[in-house]
Amino acid sequence: MTFAPTILDPAAIEAESFRIIDAEAGAHRYDERQWPIVRRIIHTTADFDFAATTCFSPGAVAAGISALRGGTRILCDTHMVRAGVNKSRLAAFGSEIVCHVADPEIARAARERGVTRSTLALRRGVEDGCGLFLIGNAPTALFELLELAGAGKVRPALVVGVPVGFVGAAESKEALLASGLPFITCRGRKGGSAIAAAILNALMLLAEEG
Amino acid sequence: MTFAPTILDPAAIEAESFRIIDAEAGAHRYDERQWPIVRRIIHTTADFDFAATTCFSPGAVAAGISALRGGTRILCDTHMVRAGVNKSRLAAFGSEIVCHVADPEIARAARERGVTRSTLALRRGVEDGCGLFLIGNAPTALFELLELAGAGKVRPALVVGVPVGFVGAAESKEALLASGLPFITCRGRKGGSAIAAAILNALMLLAEEG
Repeated sequence: MTFAPTILDPAAIEAESFRIIDAEAGAHRYDERQWPIVRRIIHTTADFDFAATTCFSPGAVAAGISALRGGTRILCDTHMVRAGVNKSRLAAFGSEIVCHVADPEIARAARERGVTRSTLALRRGVEDGCGLFLIGNAPTALFELLELAGAGKVRPALVVGVPVGFVGAAESKEALLASGLPFITCRGRKGGSAIAAAILNALMLLAEEG
Repeated sequence: MTFAPTILDPAAIEAESFRIIDAEAGAHRYDERQWPIVRRIIHTTADFDFAATTCFSPGAVAAGISALRGGTRILCDTHMVRAGVNKSRLAAFGSEIVCHVADPEIARAARERGVTRSTLALRRGVEDGCGLFLIGNAPTALFELLELAGAGKVRPALVVGVPVGFVGAAESKEALLASGLPFITCRGRKGGSAIAAAILNALMLLAEEG
């Protein structure tokens, strides 16, 4: 028995996937730089709900492209996000992506202070000068970022805030929408690490296009 | 302005999430060891579709638990899957999880032979004696595993096969369903690295329960 698939070239698989997504999504409300981002989220999840829930603040895509081209340091909230980002592509921008949630001293400090590791890992990234934030899981990280920005302690170039889940995720994204910060998000419960990584990967492709 | 969420303890957040999922899912067709796995997939994705699409071969959960307790080496197809697995928990079973898709010699060989890196990375894992397979992305990896198993070159203890996407993903999972191998899968286009990792994390918790 042979299970040979008919398409093997990764670029051809991606092109065919995008053709299917375009055809099935039909008319949508996104502009020509937003749609490649939404389409890549759908490509990553096979979930067309994101064509309804994904939102951009005015100028968010341009802000993300500009931050990437400036080599802005990026903070993410989980190692899954980091694993999903094309890091050789990112290095070409002179940027890097860091995650502090598994740092031993973060875990120790979180226990001592009774806060989540995600909260302290976010603070650490702000102290380190990160300007682009990718939050795919932890509502507490997104809430902490909004707190710090509200207090004038950080001015994010862009917040990609897409926590997933049943407790706090949707609320954290609504708070982001109301924050006045530049954002890309998806309303409701759905989100996750793969979506956060997909958004950054799509932004890098747009930034390369010039 | 303060954005303090009301629940901060990770264990309490998880318990509340599971309560919501149980309430919204209502009656389902899974037994008492399958449901913790399906529920964790829903927890990871906030997508109740998985309560309809997730399938188990008879005895799949027991096979996975037994493989874990035996310290079976695990192969996954992407570094995102590996990043999502609780590796300290896995180490307590004497097991480890490996991924070869980014190995430089795999990339070189794939170029030379005109096959995908995922195909060769899967072969490499079989040669290394892996017995539990976690495939969250690449249909070509799952097809290759089915080929090798069909040729008698590997006898997987369990195949967690949940590729996502528009080209080959659903087909690869239907082939797994028809293969006679022990499997956990989700039919259709949806799947992904986070789902693969969630299934292994849920299996580890079941294996710890005894």
